[in-house]
Amino acid sequence: MTHPRLSLNQATIKYAPLDDALRVTADAGYSSIGLWREPVQEVGLAEAVKMVEGSGLRVSSMCRGGFFTLPEGPARRAAIDDNRRAIDETAAVGAPTLVLVAGGLVDGSRDLIGARSLVTDAVGELAEYAREAGVTLAIEALHPMYASDRAVISTLGQALDIAEQFDPEAVGVVVDTFHIWWDPQVLEQIARAGSTGRIASYQVCDWATPIAADALLSRHYPGDGVIDFGSLTDAVMATGYTGDIEVEIFNQPIWDSAWPDVARRTAEAFDAVVAPHLDPVATPVSAG
Amino acid sequence: MTHPRLSLNQATIKYAPLDDALRVTADAGYSSIGLWREPVQEVGLAEAVKMVEGSGLRVSSMCRGGFFTLPEGPARRAAIDDNRRAIDETAAVGAPTLVLVAGGLVDGSRDLIGARSLVTDAVGELAEYAREAGVTLAIEALHPMYASDRAVISTLGQALDIAEQFDPEAVGVVVDTFHIWWDPQVLEQIARAGSTGRIASYQVCDWATPIAADALLSRHYPGDGVIDFGSLTDAVMATGYTGDIEVEIFNQPIWDSAWPDVARRTAEAFDAVVAPHLDPVATPVSAG
Repeated sequence: MTHPRLSLNQATIKYAPLDDALRVTADAGYSSIGLWREPVQEVGLAEAVKMVEGSGLRVSSMCRGGFFTLPEGPARRAAIDDNRRAIDETAAVGAPTLVLVAGGLVDGSRDLIGARSLVTDAVGELAEYAREAGVTLAIEALHPMYASDRAVISTLGQALDIAEQFDPEAVGVVVDTFHIWWDPQVLEQIARAGSTGRIASYQVCDWATPIAADALLSRHYPGDGVIDFGSLTDAVMATGYTGDIEVEIFNQPIWDSAWPDVARRTAEAFDAVVAPHLDPVATPVSAG
Repeated sequence: MTHPRLSLNQATIKYAPLDDALRVTADAGYSSIGLWREPVQEVGLAEAVKMVEGSGLRVSSMCRGGFFTLPEGPARRAAIDDNRRAIDETAAVGAPTLVLVAGGLVDGSRDLIGARSLVTDAVGELAEYAREAGVTLAIEALHPMYASDRAVISTLGQALDIAEQFDPEAVGVVVDTFHIWWDPQVLEQIARAGSTGRIASYQVCDWATPIAADALLSRHYPGDGVIDFGSLTDAVMATGYTGDIEVEIFNQPIWDSAWPDVARRTAEAFDAVVAPHLDPVATPVSAG
């Protein structure tokens, strides 16, 4: 039985169109999936909503909004508008959470502190819109190796510093093991995130070296690397987090594998290293 | 004129034997060089000391000791002994500082917190030996992308947490722009390092993406990447740091370049982006 709190993030089977992704995920016994905007937009939002409803799956999150590090001007306005559409899409598919990736340094700039302010300002512009839509914006700290070109928010503490400026229903954070496992403050910041009601998503995948040639594709099945999922999962559970737990892996060999194999292998990995740290789940009474 | 506080770390011209490295550095007008143990050992310590004395250069630091993340046993004892030899070598060549790289996770272990304790314990074993030799051990926080396999100390704050347990003459930290530029706490931690007298070395090189295929070789000339050397150098200078400033670059194309060209290019880069943030230096009266 696939663990009832396990959600397959669609990026783990990146090349699957939405209908295939939903089918593969449901067939593998999952109860939940994390969606990405591109495959949803490919079929159109109305059709995507029908597909999701027909699948019987929960949608644990929508990926992704953000990329806020643009100076004021038409490009920034377009980004904010696009994030409003992302909030609408998140609400339409019934996901509680929109994951936000901050964006890197402003093109041609070395002003890291200024770039972070652009992120905070953008979240401030979107928070009320998200709250009214019933969507929590989840700020994701990305590993510091992505600080220059993808996300100027590099630690959970930093994500919380922004989130805590807003209503917890509107703005939370993602706890993603891959990005924050190395952080000397990780356990205290997870506790802080829990105590202020800010954990909007818990995502698990593993770190291993060497780093992949494309550093974005360096994520691994839980258990295939060096992350101690026990201590991190215990810390998240100690906060009372009751949501789904997503496995999101960017990895070319995994993307090149058969989707049902990936779904199965993901569930096995989750059962081996994450599930033992979750509260016991009532086992359905066997019909046999 | 090459800036009087600029030191060429020998790793920037990695393939140069000690005599060549000293000659190239002096010929390029530097007053200081940072040495590595391997090329020193290649000629033997007594001969190396003579070469250094003959060069007229200061030695700003010796690289490197550390690699402390071994469980108790013969391998750990050998590592501690080797670090004592490194302290002796550092003192012999007249360098004030031995740079320490912590080491990654213990082989086959996922216990990051335990690995960090092994580092603290080792520093504790060596601190008095270093103090008696007149050498400051400089704990270097490495970029979090090296946390699993090279250094479980990932932030300046973490390095200070260890250093501050010991005499400031015996244990300090390295402030290396490449490793810590992304840290949201970097400016306050530099100030903390200064206020407690812990900055044993300031090293500058730049960050750029994509990350090199060998992630260790992804360092660039100051100014060729995204790091704001102004704010970081201002912060270090505000602490009253008066030591040399090393440029240490691991980069295959730079290693493959002619050594005099690298020495000259390094000095130009330093003059362009770091030197303007140093206190004015008395200009020697021209003999012409």
